[in-house]
Amino acid sequence: MRQSELYIKTFREAPKDEEAISAKLLIQAGFINKEMAGVYTYLPLGLKVMRKIENIVREGIEKVGGREILMPVLHPKENWVKTGRWTEFDVLYKFDQSGKDDGVVANFALGATHEEIITPLLQKNISSYRDLPTYLYQIQTKFRNEPRAKSGILRGKEFIMKDLYSFHATPEDLEKFYETMKEAYRQIFERIGLKTLVTKASGGTFSKYSHEFQVLADAGEDTVFYCLKCDFAENKEVTTIKNGDSCPQCGDKTEVSQAIEVGNIFKLGTRFSEAFNLTYRGASGKEKLVYMGCYGIGISRTMGVIVEVSNDDKGIIWPESVAPFKAHLIELKKGLGRELYGRLTKAGVEVLYDDRDLTPGEKFNDADLIGIPWRLVISDKTKNKVEIKKRGGKSIKLVSHDGIIQQLS
Amino acid sequence: MRQSELYIKTFREAPKDEEAISAKLLIQAGFINKEMAGVYTYLPLGLKVMRKIENIVREGIEKVGGREILMPVLHPKENWVKTGRWTEFDVLYKFDQSGKDDGVVANFALGATHEEIITPLLQKNISSYRDLPTYLYQIQTKFRNEPRAKSGILRGKEFIMKDLYSFHATPEDLEKFYETMKEAYRQIFERIGLKTLVTKASGGTFSKYSHEFQVLADAGEDTVFYCLKCDFAENKEVTTIKNGDSCPQCGDKTEVSQAIEVGNIFKLGTRFSEAFNLTYRGASGKEKLVYMGCYGIGISRTMGVIVEVSNDDKGIIWPESVAPFKAHLIELKKGLGRELYGRLTKAGVEVLYDDRDLTPGEKFNDADLIGIPWRLVISDKTKNKVEIKKRGGKSIKLVSHDGIIQQLS
Repeated sequence: MRQSELYIKTFREAPKDEEAISAKLLIQAGFINKEMAGVYTYLPLGLKVMRKIENIVREGIEKVGGREILMPVLHPKENWVKTGRWTEFDVLYKFDQSGKDDGVVANFALGATHEEIITPLLQKNISSYRDLPTYLYQIQTKFRNEPRAKSGILRGKEFIMKDLYSFHATPEDLEKFYETMKEAYRQIFERIGLKTLVTKASGGTFSKYSHEFQVLADAGEDTVFYCLKCDFAENKEVTTIKNGDSCPQCGDKTEVSQAIEVGNIFKLGTRFSEAFNLTYRGASGKEKLVYMGCYGIGISRTMGVIVEVSNDDKGIIWPESVAPFKAHLIELKKGLGRELYGRLTKAGVEVLYDDRDLTPGEKFNDADLIGIPWRLVISDKTKNKVEIKKRGGKSIKLVSHDGIIQQLS
Repeated sequence: MRQSELYIKTFREAPKDEEAISAKLLIQAGFINKEMAGVYTYLPLGLKVMRKIENIVREGIEKVGGREILMPVLHPKENWVKTGRWTEFDVLYKFDQSGKDDGVVANFALGATHEEIITPLLQKNISSYRDLPTYLYQIQTKFRNEPRAKSGILRGKEFIMKDLYSFHATPEDLEKFYETMKEAYRQIFERIGLKTLVTKASGGTFSKYSHEFQVLADAGEDTVFYCLKCDFAENKEVTTIKNGDSCPQCGDKTEVSQAIEVGNIFKLGTRFSEAFNLTYRGASGKEKLVYMGCYGIGISRTMGVIVEVSNDDKGIIWPESVAPFKAHLIELKKGLGRELYGRLTKAGVEVLYDDRDLTPGEKFNDADLIGIPWRLVISDKTKNKVEIKKRGGKSIKLVSHDGIIQQLS
């Protein structure tokens, strides 16, 4: 894409009303725009990153059998009353059907999570044990009335989430799939380029524990104890160890750190199938309750976390798997980059072509701020070659056009 | 995809609480599920159709230079107050920030359209005439408190829409792009397989006319006068001709019909740039107001309209360009279709493989109801061949596996 046709600019200064480094950088570099606290627009570059994260997540979930659906934002009040969460769920947005300012009693909720929709939906589609297991997921905007929406897209009032729901005949089958998901999540975050700790956390009434996928970061609201050697990791909320204790699994040294949760997996058991009478007929003909699990990944939050842990004093450093473009082609004289841009595009390389009338310094600053993995510079000085540099790296090489295309495609 | 892993069923009977044939069929065939009046879940088959429509629309809009963004659902009240539409826009959902039942004054709106977001956003990104024209669009869920939400996804309270906004230095440039969009829309709807009438309709304060893309259908809420020979078409709201009049353009016969609007293009002029002081510095250094246009396509409504006009007494008949799958492979004996399914999938053909333990009659009924373009039947009777039939057609042919792959890939 030509940068002159991106329509969105970078800013000289980071915004003053944001605390998180990810929000500062994403706004300054033109990936997102703040509409109000906890509510953001995703601009062309930001939406490209989000779509890449979504597609990695989608592929990982389809691989274990998930089928995609799209549930609504508007939820009937009665469903939430049935599960007791109309009053229990403290950050639920509830609103009135009339559309007036004068305080009509609320009849709807904005989807904060979707057990209240998917359980009655499956009630129509599951009748016998032959219909189980069932795995349905969506990638959808969610709403929570967060009192602490001060961290940009790390904690939004409106945010994008992948939520998968699984339905099983037995607790053993749920348990088995839970382990499958643990592995699927590991692979997903590895592809995204995030190092995660699979962390024990509280599990609700059905199961003692759930698991959170935590990324170590100062901006995180969770506190995690983890072992430097083995895979031991526990959220402060459930752990029995203290700062300085040795690892209860392997005896090695443990550390404590702030962390941000990017995903979680949770055994719901029969809590929601009881509320909506979601049963199946077993092989013997007997009606039994369905066992459920739910599995979330914060898509927009993940985008924020990547920036939070991958940046320097000049800007963002995107991992290649989720970068908005693979290469940033900068011409220092009008038209010099046109031919290579055409050849790279034809070879299927995603390239942002800086064809704007700006000074070299302005272009280099923008490239560092935006953080595309490979920077290519063409000028009178590079003659028939191209200067290539990895974002975050130091070495600069002069390579022929053919060599560039070979390396990047 | 194996039909046994679709997780969603068809129903023996159409729902009794729907009036529109599209809603009846889409629910019975397992494409959508009704959550409440005007609010639906898109199930795996339905979401596949919607994604195909979205992609055709996306390609058409990118072709004329549109760049995709994603604006939020939650809108600050102050933006809507600034344009006067907080009170003027009668189907706007307004709600309170507190999330309580006790009638706190509303501070937010749910996005019903996005001029109130994009205009101030562009205010940060447009400064000089060099920044114009600018074309930004999104595919996003919209919310309108429709009192007449009785037509399934033809008129939802929550629905998916593509909305493009254009920004110009002069009314002439807006006019030029308006004509470009008229042609782009024609091509988009042609690819989708919908015959549309480009219909003159009322245009607001800036322009006398806007244009609606109307599909003739009994379930439509609009009344359209159109010529049987030339391209004359006018919405009843603005036309001066009466039933039986001859065409004012070519003198031929006109007809009147109910119709459903699937898209519209609209010159906004300076109405919103005035409200948000969206100006640019001209070549002479003078500050001038930006001219705007907006261009909508109802994505979920388009899905409903296709079914409304393309069905028979057995079910839906999808055009190939938006069908959830290209072929529906039915085996009448367990395992008979497995090899062909594998070969078709490998050849890149999207195929739904009915591997379920049901009677031939049940499978055929489902295939007709779901409406995938090509039905393939493998049974002991077809031996090493396959029966192929076009949905909505009559002729059945026996073709070899190789022949099937050649025809469909």
